[in-house]
Amino acid sequence: MNHRQSQTMTLLRYCLLALSLGLVAHDAARAQEINISTRKLTDKVNPFIGTANYGTTNPGAVLPHGLMSVSPFNVSGSTENRFDKDARWWSTPYSADNEYCIGFSHVNLSGVGCPELGGLLLMATTGKFTPDYRLYGSPLTQEYARPGEYRTVLERYGIAAASTVTLRTSLTAFTFPAGEGHILLNLGQALSNESGATLHFVNDSTMVGSRLMGSFCYNPQAIFRQYFAMRVSRRPHTAGYWKKQPPMTVEAQWDATADSYKLYDRYRQEMSGDDVGVRFSYRCEEGEILYVQMGVSFVSEANALQNLEAEQADLLKESRGDYAQAYTAMLSQAVDTWEKALGVVQVEGGTQNEQTIFYTALYHMLIHPNILQDSNGEYPMMGGSGIGRTEHDRYTVFSLWDTYRNVHPLLCLLFPDKQEQMVRSMLDMYHEGGWLPRWELYGQETLTMEGDPALIAINDTWQRGVRGFDTDVAYEAMKKSATTAGADNLIRPDNDDYLSLGFVPLHEAYDNSVSHALEYYLADWNLSEFARALGRHEDAALFRKRSFGYRHYYNKEYGMLRPLLPDGSFLMPFDPKLGENFEPNPGFHEGSAYNYSFFVPHDVAGLSRLMGGRKAFVDRLQRIFDDGHYDPTNEPDIAYPYLFSYFPDEAWRTQKLTRELIDRHFCNAVDGLPGNDDAGTMSAWLVYSMLGFYPDCPGSPSYTLTSPVFPKVTIRLDRRYYPQGQLVITTTSQSDAAKCIYIKDVHVGGRKITQGRRRISHDELVGCGELHFDLGVRP
Amino acid sequence: MNHRQSQTMTLLRYCLLALSLGLVAHDAARAQEINISTRKLTDKVNPFIGTANYGTTNPGAVLPHGLMSVSPFNVSGSTENRFDKDARWWSTPYSADNEYCIGFSHVNLSGVGCPELGGLLLMATTGKFTPDYRLYGSPLTQEYARPGEYRTVLERYGIAAASTVTLRTSLTAFTFPAGEGHILLNLGQALSNESGATLHFVNDSTMVGSRLMGSFCYNPQAIFRQYFAMRVSRRPHTAGYWKKQPPMTVEAQWDATADSYKLYDRYRQEMSGDDVGVRFSYRCEEGEILYVQMGVSFVSEANALQNLEAEQADLLKESRGDYAQAYTAMLSQAVDTWEKALGVVQVEGGTQNEQTIFYTALYHMLIHPNILQDSNGEYPMMGGSGIGRTEHDRYTVFSLWDTYRNVHPLLCLLFPDKQEQMVRSMLDMYHEGGWLPRWELYGQETLTMEGDPALIAINDTWQRGVRGFDTDVAYEAMKKSATTAGADNLIRPDNDDYLSLGFVPLHEAYDNSVSHALEYYLADWNLSEFARALGRHEDAALFRKRSFGYRHYYNKEYGMLRPLLPDGSFLMPFDPKLGENFEPNPGFHEGSAYNYSFFVPHDVAGLSRLMGGRKAFVDRLQRIFDDGHYDPTNEPDIAYPYLFSYFPDEAWRTQKLTRELIDRHFCNAVDGLPGNDDAGTMSAWLVYSMLGFYPDCPGSPSYTLTSPVFPKVTIRLDRRYYPQGQLVITTTSQSDAAKCIYIKDVHVGGRKITQGRRRISHDELVGCGELHFDLGVRP
Repeated sequence: MNHRQSQTMTLLRYCLLALSLGLVAHDAARAQEINISTRKLTDKVNPFIGTANYGTTNPGAVLPHGLMSVSPFNVSGSTENRFDKDARWWSTPYSADNEYCIGFSHVNLSGVGCPELGGLLLMATTGKFTPDYRLYGSPLTQEYARPGEYRTVLERYGIAAASTVTLRTSLTAFTFPAGEGHILLNLGQALSNESGATLHFVNDSTMVGSRLMGSFCYNPQAIFRQYFAMRVSRRPHTAGYWKKQPPMTVEAQWDATADSYKLYDRYRQEMSGDDVGVRFSYRCEEGEILYVQMGVSFVSEANALQNLEAEQADLLKESRGDYAQAYTAMLSQAVDTWEKALGVVQVEGGTQNEQTIFYTALYHMLIHPNILQDSNGEYPMMGGSGIGRTEHDRYTVFSLWDTYRNVHPLLCLLFPDKQEQMVRSMLDMYHEGGWLPRWELYGQETLTMEGDPALIAINDTWQRGVRGFDTDVAYEAMKKSATTAGADNLIRPDNDDYLSLGFVPLHEAYDNSVSHALEYYLADWNLSEFARALGRHEDAALFRKRSFGYRHYYNKEYGMLRPLLPDGSFLMPFDPKLGENFEPNPGFHEGSAYNYSFFVPHDVAGLSRLMGGRKAFVDRLQRIFDDGHYDPTNEPDIAYPYLFSYFPDEAWRTQKLTRELIDRHFCNAVDGLPGNDDAGTMSAWLVYSMLGFYPDCPGSPSYTLTSPVFPKVTIRLDRRYYPQGQLVITTTSQSDAAKCIYIKDVHVGGRKITQGRRRISHDELVGCGELHFDLGVRP
Repeated sequence: MNHRQSQTMTLLRYCLLALSLGLVAHDAARAQEINISTRKLTDKVNPFIGTANYGTTNPGAVLPHGLMSVSPFNVSGSTENRFDKDARWWSTPYSADNEYCIGFSHVNLSGVGCPELGGLLLMATTGKFTPDYRLYGSPLTQEYARPGEYRTVLERYGIAAASTVTLRTSLTAFTFPAGEGHILLNLGQALSNESGATLHFVNDSTMVGSRLMGSFCYNPQAIFRQYFAMRVSRRPHTAGYWKKQPPMTVEAQWDATADSYKLYDRYRQEMSGDDVGVRFSYRCEEGEILYVQMGVSFVSEANALQNLEAEQADLLKESRGDYAQAYTAMLSQAVDTWEKALGVVQVEGGTQNEQTIFYTALYHMLIHPNILQDSNGEYPMMGGSGIGRTEHDRYTVFSLWDTYRNVHPLLCLLFPDKQEQMVRSMLDMYHEGGWLPRWELYGQETLTMEGDPALIAINDTWQRGVRGFDTDVAYEAMKKSATTAGADNLIRPDNDDYLSLGFVPLHEAYDNSVSHALEYYLADWNLSEFARALGRHEDAALFRKRSFGYRHYYNKEYGMLRPLLPDGSFLMPFDPKLGENFEPNPGFHEGSAYNYSFFVPHDVAGLSRLMGGRKAFVDRLQRIFDDGHYDPTNEPDIAYPYLFSYFPDEAWRTQKLTRELIDRHFCNAVDGLPGNDDAGTMSAWLVYSMLGFYPDCPGSPSYTLTSPVFPKVTIRLDRRYYPQGQLVITTTSQSDAAKCIYIKDVHVGGRKITQGRRRISHDELVGCGELHFDLGVRP
């Protein structure tokens, strides 16, 4: 068969797979069913956005807040790849810039900045079998992804692959050419820097096992274990483990497997090791489809198997064992789930690309935090403190330093029930481990980034009216981190200085002291608000006072926040630009003094006064944008564009900047995110900014307005929390809509608000029914 | 503390340990109890014999045919050692020539020629903890071993260590100096060339886990798994896993553990990997003793734990949790068990060294085969065919090419009940795996060496009157290997040539063809005898005829057996000395043509006729000894000294030679075995030869006599098999006993046998009550 014929055959197999899985029929049916003129919302999601330019998203199949995800893994094993996970700091299983795929990883992180998970590499190959990932990899062609499904062709083998998911399981279909075909599960490689796996056969076609994961952000002790169950749809003619053997010196003359991969085709007890896996081999007919079911758990092998049964047994039963039919049904479930989730926000108008970047952002911010508990309710408690059992959803992947700023506020608005369960999960973590989370990952506190972010997220949730959790426990937990001495304080290790001096001085060259303190000030302001809400007025006053301590850092000479030394003097020398390219910077974490100097969201007015009033404040803030000191990829300054609107006459700057930033940094392409999505934080910024409002002060149930991108957006509100049940956002443009980026008037619930007022409370927003903007071409 | 003080303290700790464990008191008590004038039999065993000069025994604690053994492991981790397991072919965990011990290995092979098992390395250290075996090892001093116990001092740490065992478990006591002390279980290193382990905490002081073992004799697919349970006597202040991390390139700048050992002190789920382990750390008082219980299983972690409970829980209960008392009780059990086993043969007279080498040989030949089943009767069936449950003892470690020659015949005489259960175990293997074993190791057929040895051992057992097994099944199994075509024949792969030509021709340079065929001839003769006994006379005639096919190989030119080519011509060139130093030799396995040319034990008369009669036969045989072509370390020729006695006038040569060989090759020293003990075969040769009789033709219930070493030996016979119940062997010497090495007369049951007859049947031996030799100084 020549190359062209081979390509044709591959394409045929790809189509055959699509047909077998009922994809075409399914799509057509749905198109008629819903509205022939409307593209489905899932069609408006491009999961490849963010898969280049360090967006660190992946195109893998996943459900909203689902535990399981299946992503192609193409960041290891070949020098043909542009990016290799081991040759740099690298934090995603998939790069649109790479060529060489060694499998499909099960359970992945989306949009994070450190390598973790991305293991259980499932692969299919043909011909003579090799377990060596440096040899068996393949380029991917004809990649296609939508919410809940990923499809591709493994070009080297002409194998079509398609995966779909449930909450904790996946089903992958491989369509083989005629001849010898293999299904591999590689437990040696993963994005995680931990290694070591064990697995065993349950029967001829079912495996269970587990692998060590952890060391997130190179934190050596945040360790956990991923369990799995795997089942192939047909009994193989040969199956067996492999294991990379250690090198031998003299003995290599008697052992041909020394320093290479050894196959164990007869042995059937457990296999353990650093670089182990299992293969199933078949004699395939042309176009034969083999299916692989995978279930995961972070509790036990038994639970992984039980999850597989709980989420797939009925589908297979209803399909009478027809895997193609089961796949179609599972995919249909997945797509429907996403349609429902995305459908909470219905946008009308705008360009197709604008709709795509909007819905893709909504998609990306609905991935984390994700559920952790098994179908039986079991989950790993914090810090390895045992196995818990939960009634509500137990969430994990709390990248809170990022997400407290906008992801959780947005979840409060769109999915308050989920946000409520996330808060309950955080309080359960406090019960189990003694502390609220900072950066929790699969039951481990990774202590990544700084501050006391859970406190802020919880207060913010309560302030927005989502209050179905134990406020006494919440308050106890919050107060613990705010008042415990530094040595015993997991969350605020600088508390001694902070409490005695009112600020955190620089003790070591790069101890991020100012960043720490700025987070504590905001946290204390949130704690104050929460105390006030609970009637604890004395505490409220105390924490409120502490929250203004940022003023210690204000340096008149620069008009900026500047690191302090233990004696209260300012650090010398001082370069406000230092840190812009992630180079180490005294006092500031992942940023420059510019990126942090306006980060006092709870006291913008006070900061403005310090700086000499509105003009000085606005000038300095504007100069940050004009001089290129604004970092659109990192959290401390992402609310900066909205701060102008504290001054009615300056609000036009917010409107102009948000449109400019959207246009400059977001697009419908693999490099369509400005940098790490940060577990949905960048995406949430985009969703808010395109909708026309932004929660610039976490913990304050209010928003700054900006000009919406779409002429009409309908948000379905959860009536259990928001009786109004709906929020419609409309715009009227005085001329060419694309040029009308300035707000002239705002109508809330049909009533025009005060001229120049560009802030709105959460209650107004969710209660008004309609938010209307008159837009114009000039400020 | 200066060095001298330190030594004194260490000695004190050693004595303290001895006192704590009641060793001194215990010994004294027993000495009074038994007979103050008689040394105990266990005191006549020197477990260090064979621990140098490639004897490959070890001084570890073990019970007769026990599964568990605990040996010091000093063959890895340091260039200070003379022998390193990875720098050569090396098959024992312990060398008397080495210095650097990295732990005590649990379950070891004794006297074998290939590396296997010798893992689960238990160690104790002090000071700053390191899991690196290249750093933490220690020299051993004050080593002491007796059947059932091994004691030493880890010199570097001043830690006294002592281990004793039950059938499937061990108890090790470590006496620490004051300060930080650690107990380590290293699962990375082992004598086995397989690797990969998994383990987890059951609670703060109990672990279970397993490790891959196998590739015995570099056979890549004979793989099995060793499970264990471990319990420490006191809760540690710190405990945790370690794991050797893979190397990193760029990422090493963020991960200090790259390419080194990482400690996991908080993580508590499973740990898996190539090089993993666990440590328990304590703040010890001076002289504090910590105990470690270990249980093993080859079925499951649960069974390992259950074995520990079954064999130690009562001891600890009776000791009210006093570990020192439990240790003493367990040791007392172990020593008593050995006293009973060794006491089956009571020797009187001879030198102390003669008694020591005799009882040590008896000790060594009672180690393998050993039991495999757990306390609940479960065991791993052949070839990984599942978990079986047995009512009788299930034995493993069948090094049958070695042991059919004398170990099993000697077990028939001394422990017929055990031998019967060994035969039943072999028949169960046939049921499970389809074949009788050749070299079975922990449920795996390793296919080491050649021939059809189980068949011989089973017929031999039956012929000696030990018949408690299913002879129909046995015959079916035997006939299967004798008659199945080569391609389907696991045991006799050369069967096609053998059946069609009557011999196995040389196809490849080093295919050991003559060795294979010689084993088949003897096997077929045994099968013929067995068939005859079962009344299958037609089969008997057929196999008898086949057994004489060795004549094909007889080459008149050399008067020797010589390799044949497929066309029936002799191999050219031919060097009968080739192979003497284990160099590859066409046609012969581990030996020269000299070592094999007289290996026709079932037709010595026929071979003699071929060679031209008695004189030619005797001359050639004598020349082998005179010219140094006799190999005392390998099986094919070890019966040679006895062949002279087929001719009454030449029997003096047997008597002379056996005494010379005993004197030359066996002594009470670490190099006191001539080479690999071969699972007790060399030791069994010594036991027989010192007793005065030898079963030179396996399958023939008869013995050749030689002059006994001891004036009086009393063998207690099992009356269920041998109603006479006792065999007393006595000698009278005409002058200086040491010089009286020639038999003048033999009395069987008080009746002098025919002058010059130097063979005796098994029935005569076990039925006569007394065997008396008149010995003289001249032939």
